[in-house]
Amino acid sequence: MAYSNLKTPASCYADFCMIPVGTGSPSISREVAEVQKVLKASGLYYKMHSAGTTVEGSWDEVMKVIGQAHSIVHQNGAVRVQSSMRVGSRTDKTQTADDKIKSVQDILARDEK
Amino acid sequence: MAYSNLKTPASCYADFCMIPVGTGSPSISREVAEVQKVLKASGLYYKMHSAGTTVEGSWDEVMKVIGQAHSIVHQNGAVRVQSSMRVGSRTDKTQTADDKIKSVQDILARDEK
Amino acid sequence: MAYSNLKTPASCYADFCMIPVGTGSPSISREVAEVQKVLKASGLYYKMHSAGTTVEGSWDEVMKVIGQAHSIVHQNGAVRVQSSMRVGSRTDKTQTADDKIKSVQDILARDEK
Amino acid sequence: MAYSNLKTPASCYADFCMIPVGTGSPSISREVAEVQKVLKASGLYYKMHSAGTTVEGSWDEVMKVIGQAHSIVHQNGAVRVQSSMRVGSRTDKTQTADDKIKSVQDILARDEK
Repeated sequence: MAYSNLKTPASCYADFCMIPVGTGSPSISREVAEVQKVLKASGLYYKMHSAGTTVEGSWDEVMKVIGQAHSIVHQNGAVRVQSSMRVGSRTDKTQTADDKIKSVQDILARDEK
Repeated sequence: MAYSNLKTPASCYADFCMIPVGTGSPSISREVAEVQKVLKASGLYYKMHSAGTTVEGSWDEVMKVIGQAHSIVHQNGAVRVQSSMRVGSRTDKTQTADDKIKSVQDILARDEK
Repeated sequence: MAYSNLKTPASCYADFCMIPVGTGSPSISREVAEVQKVLKASGLYYKMHSAGTTVEGSWDEVMKVIGQAHSIVHQNGAVRVQSSMRVGSRTDKTQTADDKIKSVQDILARDEK
Repeated sequence: MAYSNLKTPASCYADFCMIPVGTGSPSISREVAEVQKVLKASGLYYKMHSAGTTVEGSWDEVMKVIGQAHSIVHQNGAVRVQSSMRVGSRTDKTQTADDKIKSVQDILARDEK
């Protein structure tokens, strides 16, 4: 098989947490705010939570914007940037971030009856 | 130094996403619902989002409840369980999950003026 | 600033662990083997360890091959694929995977004297 | 069910990458070296690679030593420490780090014939 011709997934989500290394400050909220602006400019769906940000789109779009997020944090002075990511793709159905939460909440509501 | 006498951190957060492997179903919402019940029983602060759940407490409490979450998913039939975790501890100040989000939102609000 | 014009990093490493979900088997070595072939075909530096695989290159190259790895696992029958990734980029110097290990080993060797 | 009485898994592996935040230096090899000493003192099996360290043992032992690793990095001056972790437990069989690699290599060797 021609592995190098494989396409990347048409849709995925990535949940990522980005840490600038060696900045001299334990606070990272300034960097996170810049990353939110990069995400907003992408036009993709994204949502921040206390431990990261979830973004949805095609694999290429999602990875491009996270790479741009690394770049903006570098531009703002961090020589090293480290991210932790969870990425999921599925081919059986489309399920948004909200769908996933609702699916769990529905089960919990039924179990409580 | 006696490394084996080191204590674990008095407080931390962990954001985790747990995947049962080899269950035969791509849906994991049933398992995630069970994990929420384990978290509730722990008495710790926790909050689910679309890509995981954040839990706060002492290091030992947080790691115990995530281990119990692995065990409940095993009990429900998964012979293999895999988690992705982000864990943070800090000694300079106490910052809750809500504090972190507010800190970023405040910067974004100021920048928009 | 035109955030959407930001480039992605010229070099990075990603360490990833990919899990097919809902395959009915707890073993994932067949899928990991396929992923190694995709990595080999990319021409990038990569190295497997017991908990994942590290790959180095430009941001776009690295993310493309990991996306292709998701796709091959989908092609082989998994409707859902989940990855955990660590990604690092730095602008101050070039440091290979081997450099990083050597740097730690050198410190340990000095400390033992 | 009494969720709070659930035991944690008897065995697991964790692969972790620890980042001190706000130290003022992009290099983390000094901290990684200290963490290796903490792991050595634990008596558990562990192996460093370029993107993290894998440690094996009971859930409680593994999480204790990673918590101690956070503590040693705090003691050495980092007020904030962030870890990315992958954790796996399975009840169907015992598989060491070396077993996992060999299992993939065997498939690749067969496929090449």
